[in-house]
Amino acid sequence: MQIRREEKAPAAPTVEDVARAADVSTATVSRCLNAPDRVSERTRERVMAAVRELGYAPNFGARALAAKRTNTFGAIIPTMENAIFARGLQAFQEALGQNGVTLLVASSSYRPDLEEDQIRELVARGADALLLIGHDRTPASYAFLEQRRIPVVHAWVHDPASPRISIGFDNRAAMKALAHEVMARGHDRLGVITAAREGNDRARERFAGICDAMAERGLDPASLAVEETPYSIPNGAEAFTRLMARDPRPTAILCGNDVLAVGALGAARKMGIDVPGSVSITGFDDIEIAEIVQPSLTTVHVPHREMGRRAAELLLALRNGDAAPQSVALPTHIVWRDSLGPAPKTPA
Amino acid sequence: MQIRREEKAPAAPTVEDVARAADVSTATVSRCLNAPDRVSERTRERVMAAVRELGYAPNFGARALAAKRTNTFGAIIPTMENAIFARGLQAFQEALGQNGVTLLVASSSYRPDLEEDQIRELVARGADALLLIGHDRTPASYAFLEQRRIPVVHAWVHDPASPRISIGFDNRAAMKALAHEVMARGHDRLGVITAAREGNDRARERFAGICDAMAERGLDPASLAVEETPYSIPNGAEAFTRLMARDPRPTAILCGNDVLAVGALGAARKMGIDVPGSVSITGFDDIEIAEIVQPSLTTVHVPHREMGRRAAELLLALRNGDAAPQSVALPTHIVWRDSLGPAPKTPA
Repeated sequence: MQIRREEKAPAAPTVEDVARAADVSTATVSRCLNAPDRVSERTRERVMAAVRELGYAPNFGARALAAKRTNTFGAIIPTMENAIFARGLQAFQEALGQNGVTLLVASSSYRPDLEEDQIRELVARGADALLLIGHDRTPASYAFLEQRRIPVVHAWVHDPASPRISIGFDNRAAMKALAHEVMARGHDRLGVITAAREGNDRARERFAGICDAMAERGLDPASLAVEETPYSIPNGAEAFTRLMARDPRPTAILCGNDVLAVGALGAARKMGIDVPGSVSITGFDDIEIAEIVQPSLTTVHVPHREMGRRAAELLLALRNGDAAPQSVALPTHIVWRDSLGPAPKTPA
Repeated sequence: MQIRREEKAPAAPTVEDVARAADVSTATVSRCLNAPDRVSERTRERVMAAVRELGYAPNFGARALAAKRTNTFGAIIPTMENAIFARGLQAFQEALGQNGVTLLVASSSYRPDLEEDQIRELVARGADALLLIGHDRTPASYAFLEQRRIPVVHAWVHDPASPRISIGFDNRAAMKALAHEVMARGHDRLGVITAAREGNDRARERFAGICDAMAERGLDPASLAVEETPYSIPNGAEAFTRLMARDPRPTAILCGNDVLAVGALGAARKMGIDVPGSVSITGFDDIEIAEIVQPSLTTVHVPHREMGRRAAELLLALRNGDAAPQSVALPTHIVWRDSLGPAPKTPA
């Protein structure tokens, strides 16, 4: 596999070579690659055999310059670590695959500047359309997307006020409903473990939902004990440990997602703190592990698979120029498990 | 964001437009995009400002046709669900990013035919080099990669017999060592939960390692109770339930990875089966959750981050045509936790 500088790479086979080998027109070859459903099975098999035999790869350059569809979509997610985006993205890719679209994914590490470069890169690589997470990004990113008229669907958020096409849920209302349930169990010293809210509208909205609920119950949102840390199990554990060192000590910790909550549960066990006897812990997302940990995690269920599948339908409709697709709001619900209990009678 | 068919997309800004706006040569613009380290900070800032302002995206077509470097690498992983590949891939991307290389990822759903299409697609999109998982793929995939002289590093495997550049570990020896430890604790009725071995050399090698160890201890590998199922927590749970229904019932279940093992632990708890009192369960990978579940999982630690980081170094060296890089074997070790215990005295 080693490449030596002095070696010249062999000339790439052309669409003409494939057409000649398969004894069809170049138009038929390009149909086989770009609109296989419009070609007979037998022809397609013959052409694809030639494609394989010659090691042909569609000349993206020519296709891009001819402004043809590439049938490649891009997605930029904040992280590939932990399962937060994995399930939705898998469903998104499966739905695209059924429509002959290949998905290429980039991960921005929650950095809007990196996302901006990646948006430009995916468009340069000929992505027909993009899936982006949330509405927070650099003005330059939006300017570029609008200048180039790139079809975009924003997922994991739903902001009725935004003109941008999105599919997601009301992060603020969902977390507010959970916070109300927590306080209804007598908890009035609340803590939160959240990811950085800067540049992450999901984190910001979930945080705001807790403050909304506190205000409605006559608690001062300023009394909320806040730990901000990147989403990871170890970070959740460290943040929980810091919260337990506070005076007064919170009796309920609302976590910005299940990954942080699983870390918090692990730390509680190491510290010998009974959950939910002494402290209640809640999550957000309902990833598979929420059901496995001990105690199992009371959390907000997000329909990740449906969101991914329908995001694909939306983005295909946008790319195809179908009648203006509408943003979609998906319902969430609280999943009752074992990590949320009544506030302890005596101060923990 | 909606695209109407009749609207013509605006003409894309050219490299000349950027050069004019930044008052530099087009060569300088292209250096800023392709070899930023070879441009002064001040010049780069001026050029990138113009790039953003104009919404310029490098004309991939022209670049591809000129056979220039795109500084985009591709990776194809079998799945984005669950954290198996996430950690290594994140480290891989971070190391590439420090070298100005963008990573685009595709997920093949463990289907070699899809991987073949994705390899062709990534090359068509101008990927300079590819990271692939394992050595199992279609002959057409290898033929294409060799015809086109695409630099490739194979990760998660190390096969000294293979001439292909790989970075990984000896899956067979690692699982064999764990199986020996299991049998050393008196277990002689073993079960395994493995992913499909067809097209997955990691799964095949780990399975073979168990059989090696059994043979060395005078147990008939044919007596191994085998459940084959795709990697997922629910699948691990179902496979465990089926194994517990066997007669004789295995007293130790070796799982092909931690995801399956976590599912098995969850099923054991639901069934009221004491782990490790009645049945021992082991994993493979040492993903974060292995330490969190109850009982915590005895497993094989794989240095995912180091593998990802060094895979990036290897692939950059290949792409740059540096002196022939060598395949790298990374050590693994058993992590002792609570899910492996002595075989029960009385039949479980």
